[in-house]
Amino acid sequence: MSALVLGHMNPDTDSIMAAIAVADLYKKRGLDVKAAAQGKPTPESEFVLNKFGLTAPEVVEDVAGQDIYLVDFSDLAQAPKGIDTANVLGIVDHHKLGDITTSSPLLCWIWPAGCSCTVVKNMYDFYGVEIPASIAGGMLCAILSDTVIFKSVTCTEDDKKAVEDLAKIAGVADVKALGLEMFTVKSALEGATMDELVHRDYKDFNMNGNKIGIGQLEVVDLSMLDKYREGLQAEIEKIKADGRHSVFLLLTDIMKEGSDMLIASDDPAIVEKAFGKAPEGTHVWLDGVMSRKKQVVPNFEKAFK
Amino acid sequence: MSALVLGHMNPDTDSIMAAIAVADLYKKRGLDVKAAAQGKPTPESEFVLNKFGLTAPEVVEDVAGQDIYLVDFSDLAQAPKGIDTANVLGIVDHHKLGDITTSSPLLCWIWPAGCSCTVVKNMYDFYGVEIPASIAGGMLCAILSDTVIFKSVTCTEDDKKAVEDLAKIAGVADVKALGLEMFTVKSALEGATMDELVHRDYKDFNMNGNKIGIGQLEVVDLSMLDKYREGLQAEIEKIKADGRHSVFLLLTDIMKEGSDMLIASDDPAIVEKAFGKAPEGTHVWLDGVMSRKKQVVPNFEKAFK
Repeated sequence: MSALVLGHMNPDTDSIMAAIAVADLYKKRGLDVKAAAQGKPTPESEFVLNKFGLTAPEVVEDVAGQDIYLVDFSDLAQAPKGIDTANVLGIVDHHKLGDITTSSPLLCWIWPAGCSCTVVKNMYDFYGVEIPASIAGGMLCAILSDTVIFKSVTCTEDDKKAVEDLAKIAGVADVKALGLEMFTVKSALEGATMDELVHRDYKDFNMNGNKIGIGQLEVVDLSMLDKYREGLQAEIEKIKADGRHSVFLLLTDIMKEGSDMLIASDDPAIVEKAFGKAPEGTHVWLDGVMSRKKQVVPNFEKAFK
Repeated sequence: MSALVLGHMNPDTDSIMAAIAVADLYKKRGLDVKAAAQGKPTPESEFVLNKFGLTAPEVVEDVAGQDIYLVDFSDLAQAPKGIDTANVLGIVDHHKLGDITTSSPLLCWIWPAGCSCTVVKNMYDFYGVEIPASIAGGMLCAILSDTVIFKSVTCTEDDKKAVEDLAKIAGVADVKALGLEMFTVKSALEGATMDELVHRDYKDFNMNGNKIGIGQLEVVDLSMLDKYREGLQAEIEKIKADGRHSVFLLLTDIMKEGSDMLIASDDPAIVEKAFGKAPEGTHVWLDGVMSRKKQVVPNFEKAFK
């Protein structure tokens, strides 16, 4: 059976594209692998896959007893069912180092970059394997998505360099226009249920024994979300009630460059402890905060210690 | 304060040399770092340092609150005091992925190779930084040590290729002769206390909640150890009594290519469970077993699950 290459739960464009790209690279290096995903593509990812003629990876929800390569995560909380009996052969990631351990040596490419696909671009170069134009286009979009078109504090020179190279390979002339087109798709709210909106980019974390959910919705203008706030708050209260200490939802305005965070928590004071700013009711505006990974998770982890 | 680059407890030649080499590479890439070690060099490492005119890294036993880069390990059990408040910025390793986690993204180069210095050689190449001849010589020796001059099952094509390249840089004409000279130093037993012999290459592991110590002594002929067996057995019993479930000592014959394992355990039956062979009294001959990392630790981890 082929080893699976797969990203985290509620896959975003980086988890989908890094799985496709790493599977392509490893196949070309002679390994028997195939891309997989823990769920269907988001509207943003579908836009990207369609744009470059790529196929969504097979959905896999149980990896018991299988050989797997992880992309874009190293936390058990974001792993599929059966991870405890799976054989993790490698990790490509750009997050903090999580709590997944292995019994045998493995191959890890983990960089403090803005996107896993930036790491994968460098892996292709290191191994001297050519990147197909379609995959280059998808990787480029993943980097634009994760770095919010280079605006996020997580964005590094490596990300910008990777986008420059990938744009040439994919034949994309105007990278920013493509980014804005993609974010407009990502911002689309019509027709989505509250459950879909909260889970569009949602992750569970284990913080000092507390299960914490953090979701993020990125929009080009926060006022687009006004009529959804009440429904979103009710939805995160519901998710919190299912065994979690807290659920936070970042409503990120990519033009204003900040996030309004909705709060459902057993201990709302943790928010002030983490960010030095008291919530107004069940939300708080965090100026300049656009990155869950670099600006939100570390602060909560410290606050929960 | 400079960030520290340091290897595991009871540093072997790979932990010493990888720290020196990674510190050299990162300094040349503009980072403020210095090599450190959790202890003094072994006789083998001293031989290597002297041979190539290198200086032993500063001994550091507490890293509380400091920025650190780890080489040659990712397990808390092998980390220095203060690791819980240190800021781990990166890992270079060739072992299974351990239980160290971080709060921020970091740089990991972790390969399933025979030696950390093989990974470091590839990092120098990736970043286009020249390796000084002296450091190349030391790295070459670390690879020969970890792979038992290419005889260990852990040895990969990457290790052989790295040695070939490093030998040219260091001007070493006969790699095997250098390896045997080094192993003769490593095998030297005269004058050493039992405590020194057991700790020459010793590591603690956390296996499903049990603290397990595993040491290894590599000799060119097992009979050299006959007069020390009784003392070594008493020594591992003593170490076990200090809060451990088991302590195992591999007496590895690099010519016969196998290990006689001395056993001190609350549950000696675990050895048969792990290796399918019943001990004779307090030891068992394991034919073909030369690698703690690849042939001993994974078997015990499965047996303890």
